[in-house]
Amino acid sequence: MHKLVLIRHGESTWNLENRFTGWTDVDLTPLGLEQAVQAGRLLKQEGYDFDLCYTSVLKRATRTLWHVLDEMDRTWLPVAHSWRLNERHYGALQGLNKAETAKKFGDEQVLVWRRSYDTPPPALDEADPRWERSDRRYVKVQDAEFPRTECLKDTVARVLPFWNESIAPALKAGKRVLVAAHGNSMRALVKYLDDIPDADIVGLNIPNGIPLVYELDTQLKPVRHYYLGDAEAAARAAAAVAAQGRSA
Amino acid sequence: MHKLVLIRHGESTWNLENRFTGWTDVDLTPLGLEQAVQAGRLLKQEGYDFDLCYTSVLKRATRTLWHVLDEMDRTWLPVAHSWRLNERHYGALQGLNKAETAKKFGDEQVLVWRRSYDTPPPALDEADPRWERSDRRYVKVQDAEFPRTECLKDTVARVLPFWNESIAPALKAGKRVLVAAHGNSMRALVKYLDDIPDADIVGLNIPNGIPLVYELDTQLKPVRHYYLGDAEAAARAAAAVAAQGRSA
Repeated sequence: MHKLVLIRHGESTWNLENRFTGWTDVDLTPLGLEQAVQAGRLLKQEGYDFDLCYTSVLKRATRTLWHVLDEMDRTWLPVAHSWRLNERHYGALQGLNKAETAKKFGDEQVLVWRRSYDTPPPALDEADPRWERSDRRYVKVQDAEFPRTECLKDTVARVLPFWNESIAPALKAGKRVLVAAHGNSMRALVKYLDDIPDADIVGLNIPNGIPLVYELDTQLKPVRHYYLGDAEAAARAAAAVAAQGRSA
Repeated sequence: MHKLVLIRHGESTWNLENRFTGWTDVDLTPLGLEQAVQAGRLLKQEGYDFDLCYTSVLKRATRTLWHVLDEMDRTWLPVAHSWRLNERHYGALQGLNKAETAKKFGDEQVLVWRRSYDTPPPALDEADPRWERSDRRYVKVQDAEFPRTECLKDTVARVLPFWNESIAPALKAGKRVLVAAHGNSMRALVKYLDDIPDADIVGLNIPNGIPLVYELDTQLKPVRHYYLGDAEAAARAAAAVAAQGRSA
């Protein structure tokens, strides 16, 4: 049996400010940092250990991972970063307040952008300073793959090659893998692993900073999955995520 | 021209307590953390950037690197850990206070253990709880290579394969490399790079947390090297290192 642990980064400054974040490289809040520390303590306390870690190129995920590793006394574990684990690109909405955007465009339109599987938000203009095509961390990303916006379907499409080429082979080689990622890159993995229909995955809310454990068979099919720790707290945290972006 | 930056970790708790540390995995002090932050700011301010980082499997070096990368906004850079960059193994002296050891064995004997090129301190017994042979991070180290004590000559011998197989090829491939390491693993690299005689290398003191820049030609021969920032502060910090381990 293989074990895979996924963790969404702790609360970020823009989670707190209720802004669309996407690829914007915002940091954790003090609460987000504490969530990461608690996740590390919980993993250690429950006897988890890892051989290999993956994370995005965004600091809220990397810092979450660092704090987890620190608490587990595993600061020496190999960590691989990939843009493919980044949050969904939120296009021209990046930086906008979710509630204000809902007031301007209507709750319904914002809900479509947030929760439709295949309708992306408006794309970033290439002249927009928020477009990070020339950022050094993306230098190896092909032009055709570099997003100006993404719907969840797009995110799934660019996350899965990383699963297939990196994470799955590591698991099959017997490595215990920890992935520190984002709400939507985790949705992409969960959708794939649990074969969740397009219409249902958008209703799945993933809480910040709570380890999500997958037990996988030899073919990497999930046997079961569960959040570590207080199940009620995980449910409350997921509900709080779902409530973001309402105008009222 | 190739550029290589070496940095010794910031002050550790056992630097502060004046104890022989070696492979013991002690953390940074608040000052050590601040030294790491300052080093990162200095590197950023001076326009340095990197493609690849190396560090040991000890947390004082890893944490120094993390703080440097954080200040440079480069938390996404690849980091490779190797036990070959660890501090010199201090054998049965690990954990002992330097001044007390000097009182017990005499200044002269301690100076031999600290500064002789080829006389190792007494070896750790395999039954000694300080012997970390079974620690997970060392699982791939061959028995014959796993030290029970080291003189600087031994450290040089196990650092150089990592230079030859990892760091040098990366530099030759055009990568800008940052190495966060330890007093004696840095001495090993400096000795090799500058071809310093056995008798002289032991007198070279490397300050905590000050970036040491090597400019290398196409054959990786040093053209020049220098500490970044306040040269006088670097000299004072090196003198402070040299003064440790005197009984008075």
